[in-house]
Amino acid sequence: MPTARPRAVTMADIAKEAGVSRATVSFVLNDREDVAIPEATRARVRRIAADRGYRPNAAARGLARQRSGWYGLVTEIVTSPLAVQVIRGAQQQAWAEERFLLIAPSDDEWQMESAAIEKLLEQRVEGVIIAATWHRPVVVPPNAYDVPCVLVNCFDAKGILPSIVPDEVSGGRTAAQVLIEAGHQRIGHVTLEPGIPAQVGRLDGFRRTLAEAGITLDEELIVAGDGSTESGYRGGVELLERDDAPTAIFCGNDRMAMGVYDAAKERDIRIPEDLSIVGFDDQQFLAESLRPGLTTVALPFEEMGARGVSMLTSLTAGSAIDNAKVEIDCPLRLRSSVGSLLR
Amino acid sequence: MPTARPRAVTMADIAKEAGVSRATVSFVLNDREDVAIPEATRARVRRIAADRGYRPNAAARGLARQRSGWYGLVTEIVTSPLAVQVIRGAQQQAWAEERFLLIAPSDDEWQMESAAIEKLLEQRVEGVIIAATWHRPVVVPPNAYDVPCVLVNCFDAKGILPSIVPDEVSGGRTAAQVLIEAGHQRIGHVTLEPGIPAQVGRLDGFRRTLAEAGITLDEELIVAGDGSTESGYRGGVELLERDDAPTAIFCGNDRMAMGVYDAAKERDIRIPEDLSIVGFDDQQFLAESLRPGLTTVALPFEEMGARGVSMLTSLTAGSAIDNAKVEIDCPLRLRSSVGSLLR
Repeated sequence: MPTARPRAVTMADIAKEAGVSRATVSFVLNDREDVAIPEATRARVRRIAADRGYRPNAAARGLARQRSGWYGLVTEIVTSPLAVQVIRGAQQQAWAEERFLLIAPSDDEWQMESAAIEKLLEQRVEGVIIAATWHRPVVVPPNAYDVPCVLVNCFDAKGILPSIVPDEVSGGRTAAQVLIEAGHQRIGHVTLEPGIPAQVGRLDGFRRTLAEAGITLDEELIVAGDGSTESGYRGGVELLERDDAPTAIFCGNDRMAMGVYDAAKERDIRIPEDLSIVGFDDQQFLAESLRPGLTTVALPFEEMGARGVSMLTSLTAGSAIDNAKVEIDCPLRLRSSVGSLLR
Repeated sequence: MPTARPRAVTMADIAKEAGVSRATVSFVLNDREDVAIPEATRARVRRIAADRGYRPNAAARGLARQRSGWYGLVTEIVTSPLAVQVIRGAQQQAWAEERFLLIAPSDDEWQMESAAIEKLLEQRVEGVIIAATWHRPVVVPPNAYDVPCVLVNCFDAKGILPSIVPDEVSGGRTAAQVLIEAGHQRIGHVTLEPGIPAQVGRLDGFRRTLAEAGITLDEELIVAGDGSTESGYRGGVELLERDDAPTAIFCGNDRMAMGVYDAAKERDIRIPEDLSIVGFDDQQFLAESLRPGLTTVALPFEEMGARGVSMLTSLTAGSAIDNAKVEIDCPLRLRSSVGSLLR
């Protein structure tokens, strides 16, 4: 393998060749027009730098300016393909702002979190984003308060740090609306694990939207799942074996919808002709791979990641953040699992 | 929001308070035992640093040593939850080596790749990993050759850079073996898109293992898919509607296996009692969510990411890399979709 590479060209090399001081080279290459340097000298320095393949040292420049240009992202998300879009969204926004993200891992128990933040601070990041795989309150370690810090897909249990979370209630509303608009009145719901913000918010939005449409919700059609395919299957069996089975089921996530598909197919209940199903998450490679494709409500991971970066940029610029908890809309992904009862 | 934070404590602050020079503080805090400094002075400096919450500036230290401690990871993987494990594996290995990964995005067409590498080089990364979402030959931009560079889940079309890829042939062997050991002789195969390394390698391993077991492969049981659930469904229908239908089907990936599940369930063919199925990829949240859970061959994304980092560390240390193309084993994930024909 080639391991001996030519030494990188430095400003000192260019200064020597151009017959000027290193400071002059620095002024020219940093476009310091406030320093009086003859245009001919500037042109010569630039030409030599280009010829020699000089590459600016962004790290040294950031250090000199006390502005590293880096944000830290601490996340357990690295362990979850579900929410990799947070990294993608944050990455793209950082890139657009000509910043780098330093990504540090945390584990599910957040035990590594304080150490991860400490390492990032030693790298002189200008701000830190802490992102979670599922929407919940979190207690952050004390060093998170040492720089501007934004929470993504979670929120500060102490109510101090600003956060960006999905609007679960509006997501539940969206799911209910698409079914009501297709003429459904008897709608079942298989919930997520009781008590988590996603379960509470989605059910709340679902319930309110039915009420606003004048539909009386049969509480027996709300069955508790736990997010797994198996619990979706069990919930589906329970609902579909009733004499007054619902014509539509809203599932708290896509994996449970996958279980309901199985329960329906086993009973020769056709989707969407005999049963309409709406999921939640828009889990990539799952929602669109179900047959028929699953109509679902997407979690706005990518937008949350991007907003995390832009909020951090506002904070580091000294802006006050008006809204301590920004809720991002969960958009509908229309596929083929909802059938109309209207003619 | 709190935006005014106390200024970070510097070595100069500590020097002033301790009544010593900044150089002395630096020697003490960097544990330079070769410099003669009284133990009492060392103790005083350390105490003041601890009291004042001094945080070492790792970026400045790396710059002074000309060893940033950073590796760059250029990847389109940021757009794919399938292969986020590459990031996880690389991240964990880097963390264990006390290094940071700077992750830069590329798009599927690799148009941004040269720009991404250039930005990383300006940050003075010591090496670069280029990772792909699917196993294939790639042409890297010329600046990838300016630092040590390792390719992950792809390989250099020019044959220069070292790479780490999945051992597709051994993966195909593993899939065939688990079915042969369960007594299957008529085994169908729904392939990936013809011509890509994963399709060629998996089929090759499958074919060879059958031959070694003395089983004549009926070429009509090999049907071409394209990786989608729908193509898996079509392949499943084609195989299951034959008079001499196979008792087992090896699918080129898990999504196609999902389609074969549907084809079987529609025909009241029970898995695994009437039909055994093996997938490939061990796609998280899909393989284990199918009912019954899918026995599959895992792509070693996490190990490839980790090996990419450790290979880069060998390269930056000046080691020659013996094997220009390291193939990583694809391990079996045994679940419940394979039934035995033996008694």
